[in-house]
Amino acid sequence: MITFLSGGTGTPKLLAGAREILGDGAITVIVNTAEDMWYQGGHLSPDIDTVLYLFAGLLNKETWWGIAGDSFVTHKALRSLGSDAYLSLGDRDRATTIIRGDYLRSGLSLTEATKMLSGVFGLSATIIPMCDTPVASMVQTETGIMHFQEYWVKHRGTCAITGIVRESDKEPCATREVISSIQDAEMVVIGPSNPVTSILPILSCAGVRQALAKKRVVAISPFIGDEPVSGPARDLMIAHGVIPDSRGVFLMYSDFLDIFIQDESDPVTVPGSVRCNTLMKNETIAADLMRRILELGEIGG
Amino acid sequence: MITFLSGGTGTPKLLAGAREILGDGAITVIVNTAEDMWYQGGHLSPDIDTVLYLFAGLLNKETWWGIAGDSFVTHKALRSLGSDAYLSLGDRDRATTIIRGDYLRSGLSLTEATKMLSGVFGLSATIIPMCDTPVASMVQTETGIMHFQEYWVKHRGTCAITGIVRESDKEPCATREVISSIQDAEMVVIGPSNPVTSILPILSCAGVRQALAKKRVVAISPFIGDEPVSGPARDLMIAHGVIPDSRGVFLMYSDFLDIFIQDESDPVTVPGSVRCNTLMKNETIAADLMRRILELGEIGG
Repeated sequence: MITFLSGGTGTPKLLAGAREILGDGAITVIVNTAEDMWYQGGHLSPDIDTVLYLFAGLLNKETWWGIAGDSFVTHKALRSLGSDAYLSLGDRDRATTIIRGDYLRSGLSLTEATKMLSGVFGLSATIIPMCDTPVASMVQTETGIMHFQEYWVKHRGTCAITGIVRESDKEPCATREVISSIQDAEMVVIGPSNPVTSILPILSCAGVRQALAKKRVVAISPFIGDEPVSGPARDLMIAHGVIPDSRGVFLMYSDFLDIFIQDESDPVTVPGSVRCNTLMKNETIAADLMRRILELGEIGG
Repeated sequence: MITFLSGGTGTPKLLAGAREILGDGAITVIVNTAEDMWYQGGHLSPDIDTVLYLFAGLLNKETWWGIAGDSFVTHKALRSLGSDAYLSLGDRDRATTIIRGDYLRSGLSLTEATKMLSGVFGLSATIIPMCDTPVASMVQTETGIMHFQEYWVKHRGTCAITGIVRESDKEPCATREVISSIQDAEMVVIGPSNPVTSILPILSCAGVRQALAKKRVVAISPFIGDEPVSGPARDLMIAHGVIPDSRGVFLMYSDFLDIFIQDESDPVTVPGSVRCNTLMKNETIAADLMRRILELGEIGG
């Protein structure tokens, strides 16, 4: 069993390739939940849903969120009625947030709710939220503090960021399921997700770094030079106080990391890193990358 | 200004005719909210929504609930994922329940939320919920107690009813807006709604019967013989302990009623009642009935 730490775009692209090599049943994904929010009465877990839909074969692979071919009738109605519906939630996608919301209101933990939803969607892969404590990545900007989704979706990442904090009522603590999935894994793979908003929230759950330190861990840098392959990682890395390139990423993971993969075209030098094609423009490239990761981890693929 | 007491089907049919005679600006509707419920994260007010959509020109007049031409993508997705989504909530209709839910969660009263929604839909008519206290009509059946919507929609009214109760945390009390709309009205009209589940909840709000006693009140019986024109009034009247015909209806209203209208074909005799065509098969008949009501109330139409 290989365990992945995932956000919403870079790692799911790798997972799309990993499915071909490993089969869904051999994959466990610990997913960032610091972008979760109650939204329009349902519970939105953007990164969990991307992974859920990927394994269910429903994911919109143009946007890497939502369900392919979904309609947006309720969303458009809300907008036309003047609602500040800044996240475009599709009608089928909304059903998932409603089911999750009902589970959570009935007293289930997010881990339990995710397991139930995985069953509902008929998945063989195992999806585990990073913790059961609500956590929110909040971005500090000149116009005030706002939820990461508000910054990235509503304001399209155009506000200057002065800092980033994670808010939660109590210290996020890795669940038993998270720790087991690391302990039981042949290898842990940190995909090319946003280090600050996708991976760091997972690493910050009490117990995760210690568990990773005892395992073979491979991480793929999402940077080529000082630009990430996608998303707002650059500004967020600077706001977090680290160099926005592969060196910064390596530093964030260095206490537990065994193998660091950089793209073959990345001009930044990180001593000891391995070079691969990490630009997963299609699933063949993703599968090739996954095969290389298994070789590096000395795991028969 | 004419004030109506309304449920979800009979009175809205009369309102469709009243609009032509009075104009929306002269109409106030006090609406039953004892069938309200939190549903899939939104707040459903079935009778308010029917009246809201009627005045917004959006109502599906085949079913007398929901929005004409609405789609059901989320509802179908929920069903296909195994959810017990027994109420068919349309995608555009859902937007209304989401907006109301967000208003209520933000601390607005149902009266305020309804006023805001009326503004959002651009209404000239005034819609007032019967009270701001959550109230639920619960039906006692052989298989247990259940919400009226569950009995009527999920079980299609097929369970034998042994009783009906209204549940609320505190005694429902008419709001200032309800009392004013009765006091300021030239006449109050109780449409041919279900007396037990639509009108009685309104009359049971503290202060309503006393306010009505001081006004000219016209009521239209929903019964012809021992069958209501539509809906489950018959079983509910029996469960409530009154004769399921116009005599029973008259008795429920007799302490404040001035004029009682029965259908011209109703074989039941209620002394002093007025006979009209109350079968509002189209809006012309509804407008004729409304014109007759104004004459009976000696109000120039």
